[in-house]
Amino acid sequence: MSGARRFAGWGFFGQEVRPSAEALALLRHHVGKGDPLPEASTDGFCLPRSRAFGRLGVCWERDSAARLAHCAGQSFPDLVGLRTKTQKAFPDGVAHPATPEQVWQVLSLAARNGWVVVPRGGGTSVVGGVTVPQGERPTLVLLTDRLRGLVSLDGRSGLATFWAGTLGPEVEAELAAHGFWLGHEPQSFELSTVGGWVATRSAGHRSTGVGRIEDLLAGAEVALPEGLFRLEPVPAAAVGPELRQLLCGSEGRLGVFTRVTLRVRQPPRSDPGLLMVVPSWWDGMELCRRLLQEGLAPQVVRLSDAPETTLALALAELKGLGKVASQLLFARRRFAQGCLLLLGGGEEERLRRAWRVAGQLGAWSLGAWGWRRWLRDRFRHPYLRDAFLSLGFGVDTCETAAPWSALARLYEGVHRALTSRAQAMGVRVWTLCHLSHAYGDGASLYFTFFWALRRLREVEDWAQLKQAWVEAVLSLGGTLSHHHGVGRMHAPWLEREVGDQGAKLLRALARSVDPRGILNPGVLFPDGEP
Amino acid sequence: MSGARRFAGWGFFGQEVRPSAEALALLRHHVGKGDPLPEASTDGFCLPRSRAFGRLGVCWERDSAARLAHCAGQSFPDLVGLRTKTQKAFPDGVAHPATPEQVWQVLSLAARNGWVVVPRGGGTSVVGGVTVPQGERPTLVLLTDRLRGLVSLDGRSGLATFWAGTLGPEVEAELAAHGFWLGHEPQSFELSTVGGWVATRSAGHRSTGVGRIEDLLAGAEVALPEGLFRLEPVPAAAVGPELRQLLCGSEGRLGVFTRVTLRVRQPPRSDPGLLMVVPSWWDGMELCRRLLQEGLAPQVVRLSDAPETTLALALAELKGLGKVASQLLFARRRFAQGCLLLLGGGEEERLRRAWRVAGQLGAWSLGAWGWRRWLRDRFRHPYLRDAFLSLGFGVDTCETAAPWSALARLYEGVHRALTSRAQAMGVRVWTLCHLSHAYGDGASLYFTFFWALRRLREVEDWAQLKQAWVEAVLSLGGTLSHHHGVGRMHAPWLEREVGDQGAKLLRALARSVDPRGILNPGVLFPDGEP
Repeated sequence: MSGARRFAGWGFFGQEVRPSAEALALLRHHVGKGDPLPEASTDGFCLPRSRAFGRLGVCWERDSAARLAHCAGQSFPDLVGLRTKTQKAFPDGVAHPATPEQVWQVLSLAARNGWVVVPRGGGTSVVGGVTVPQGERPTLVLLTDRLRGLVSLDGRSGLATFWAGTLGPEVEAELAAHGFWLGHEPQSFELSTVGGWVATRSAGHRSTGVGRIEDLLAGAEVALPEGLFRLEPVPAAAVGPELRQLLCGSEGRLGVFTRVTLRVRQPPRSDPGLLMVVPSWWDGMELCRRLLQEGLAPQVVRLSDAPETTLALALAELKGLGKVASQLLFARRRFAQGCLLLLGGGEEERLRRAWRVAGQLGAWSLGAWGWRRWLRDRFRHPYLRDAFLSLGFGVDTCETAAPWSALARLYEGVHRALTSRAQAMGVRVWTLCHLSHAYGDGASLYFTFFWALRRLREVEDWAQLKQAWVEAVLSLGGTLSHHHGVGRMHAPWLEREVGDQGAKLLRALARSVDPRGILNPGVLFPDGEP
Repeated sequence: MSGARRFAGWGFFGQEVRPSAEALALLRHHVGKGDPLPEASTDGFCLPRSRAFGRLGVCWERDSAARLAHCAGQSFPDLVGLRTKTQKAFPDGVAHPATPEQVWQVLSLAARNGWVVVPRGGGTSVVGGVTVPQGERPTLVLLTDRLRGLVSLDGRSGLATFWAGTLGPEVEAELAAHGFWLGHEPQSFELSTVGGWVATRSAGHRSTGVGRIEDLLAGAEVALPEGLFRLEPVPAAAVGPELRQLLCGSEGRLGVFTRVTLRVRQPPRSDPGLLMVVPSWWDGMELCRRLLQEGLAPQVVRLSDAPETTLALALAELKGLGKVASQLLFARRRFAQGCLLLLGGGEEERLRRAWRVAGQLGAWSLGAWGWRRWLRDRFRHPYLRDAFLSLGFGVDTCETAAPWSALARLYEGVHRALTSRAQAMGVRVWTLCHLSHAYGDGASLYFTFFWALRRLREVEDWAQLKQAWVEAVLSLGGTLSHHHGVGRMHAPWLEREVGDQGAKLLRALARSVDPRGILNPGVLFPDGEP
């Protein structure tokens, strides 16, 4: 759970995960054999000279190792750029302010001098949110790694204020010491920060039960070039447009979060859950909808489609009785298109009711082991991507959300769009999907797609598939992102989603705090100007 | 539930409510005898000539009756201004656009010509949100009364789109016809509109269970001077700052809502509830906190303090056995400071658990009759205000919200502030309070204060008490408003709550859609300029 972060890959050194032989055979069957991406290494980079900042008044670094380690995030093009050493832009320095006042001071200096600032928490953005942009202006990565820990706890109100750079496991450890729990567990939990969660409108695995980060956000302090902007926690208010919700999701364009007050609760006494199989994706979707609309949803609702179920079983490396049982189950005609469904977390009585309804609607319980195994392994899954890339398989994940009535069309439209684009490109694509983060009025769909990498065309091929995905989603009523955010990757499409009027409002906001466009330019608005 | 709206008073003609003799005796005991406010009448007003608008292209009125009926809302100064005929500003016309395009057309014409536009739904604002401002510019009230009814229903997703001018009872009738229910029941339910709810961040009686209007808001269409701005419904998204939440609470400064998509649900099978008595306000607060934090809260949580309990019992005109029982109960030493607590609405099993916990913590059940009576009468209560004014009692209600840890200090601070300000003014004030709209991290406190009216000093006295209230609340961690909104009344204090940085962001937004400041000037920002 700790240790040195890997370069150009997910997570910590020594935590790498290898896919099973069965999974690789499956992938080869679906997309063929590709050209492996070079392994990540910090050797052989030739960084341009760091442009001077003069006196920053805070601790900062300009050595190559620091500049290299903080030039990009975890998007597909980020990883390819770093592993093939074609990455173009590097920060001129990496600042580590230790107080909100120091963050403000850096921003104020940057605004006066026209330096670009890229705020960075855990650096796990998969949409280019922390990718250093190319450009003439000196660029500073502003790390929040020295703003760590619990600031204060109001136990009576269940309100905990954290420094923005506090990592997920640190949040829960601090809270546990005081008998509290947050329950916000995004896939990046071990690596990402409170400030990053709020800046990107993050959602955790348990969001169906505990809410998204915007539901947990009660108050905040944000550093702007002009000073510190504090919004005290209130349970609810009617004093004009909600400014906390306006800052939440601003992705560094409206300042840098320095302190965040979150709604916390009593830790659960137990954490029960079941892995189930439903006869089909459509049966599973209908079941999820009913659970949500009847108020029976547990904290985690996660339905894999048939392809993802196949890959999950192949990756699970079942042995002995488990293997035989699984083969027998999926061999039954009823479960030939069987889909895995996880229902877990939350109050036991409610869960039992959910399981009962699931059973009535045709779900078959595989017991608690699958739930416990998922809980144990869930933060390991992203490590697989790096291994797949090393084996020649391109892979990316894209997620959206839409009303229940739009999900079937969306699901099929995305498959069609990716397949036909891949055909035109002369590659094969394998598209997997799961439904998670369910709501009364809809749910998010999380797509994973694989293709065979082609040397020197990795990013070009990816960009074509990504574009096909976005166009399909936006034309079928889905949102550009349910929880990954906009970053630089989705910025060209932001206006398609929010309209020219919406874009105008957002630009007016950015311009008012940052007239020179020094705050994370390229994020939200593609042209880099506010 | 329908009929003609009263002039300079709450609700409909023929629905007036008179306070009981016992209640009046109680008020006289606490604040003394005041000077009755003149009865409301439309006679004797001398309106200035209506300034011309030329061709508006939509149905509009300029007769005195229409101008008089739409010049103000339901705030204390509004009512005094109208009843004493000292009201100063009247609209030059009242427009009734029938389509979103017509709303846009009116706004576009107004922007070009520099006319002021005051958007108006049900006209029930108690904070000056629809009070026509004085000024040189011709002023048009834009009514949404021809934008009525259900636009579309997505039953699968539980999403209903309404025209913005649809009234509360119409919303529920339309939904009931399709087997759905919204459950948003603000005090103004019978009079207010979907657009008004969203524009002001309204909360209903059942908000603890069904959520506030911002939780129910999934999508919207807003008319701006430049065009129609549509945000399609999505269950959740991470595409920058949440624009729906930015429009919600904009109180007419960022355009006029024309269509609103709300999250609806299955109607409850039953609507159980209990009226209880807790030994004290502090016991009751602690109980409410526990119910909320343990996930046991019903839809309605409403705790009256001891003074409000006394007045409620006096107003209830209990007779026979009920009267005797109530006297016996409150005569017991344990309930000498007894407070009424309503817990009702929602799932039966959950309610039973809530009642059980309440009982364990010392609450005594008065049975379901009090709940049923409250349900029957709750939309009648605001009518009492007009009767009190006619009898010489000044009365206003102010509400706030704060974390649980701040509520005790806030409650006492407000009492102290009002009492000492009243003393300085040479009047007596009687302050009542209830806690409602509870959350895991805090609750709203709703204060009602009475004083004896002094002829020709009604507004001046009120303003002093109001100011004392606001200063106390803001200095003790409360919000300026939990659900009444900002309007023109709270605008001078907005910056105190959101800071200069927050005010700057809000002004930047307003300026970007409305550079000439024609949209509801004076609301949110006191200077009338964007």
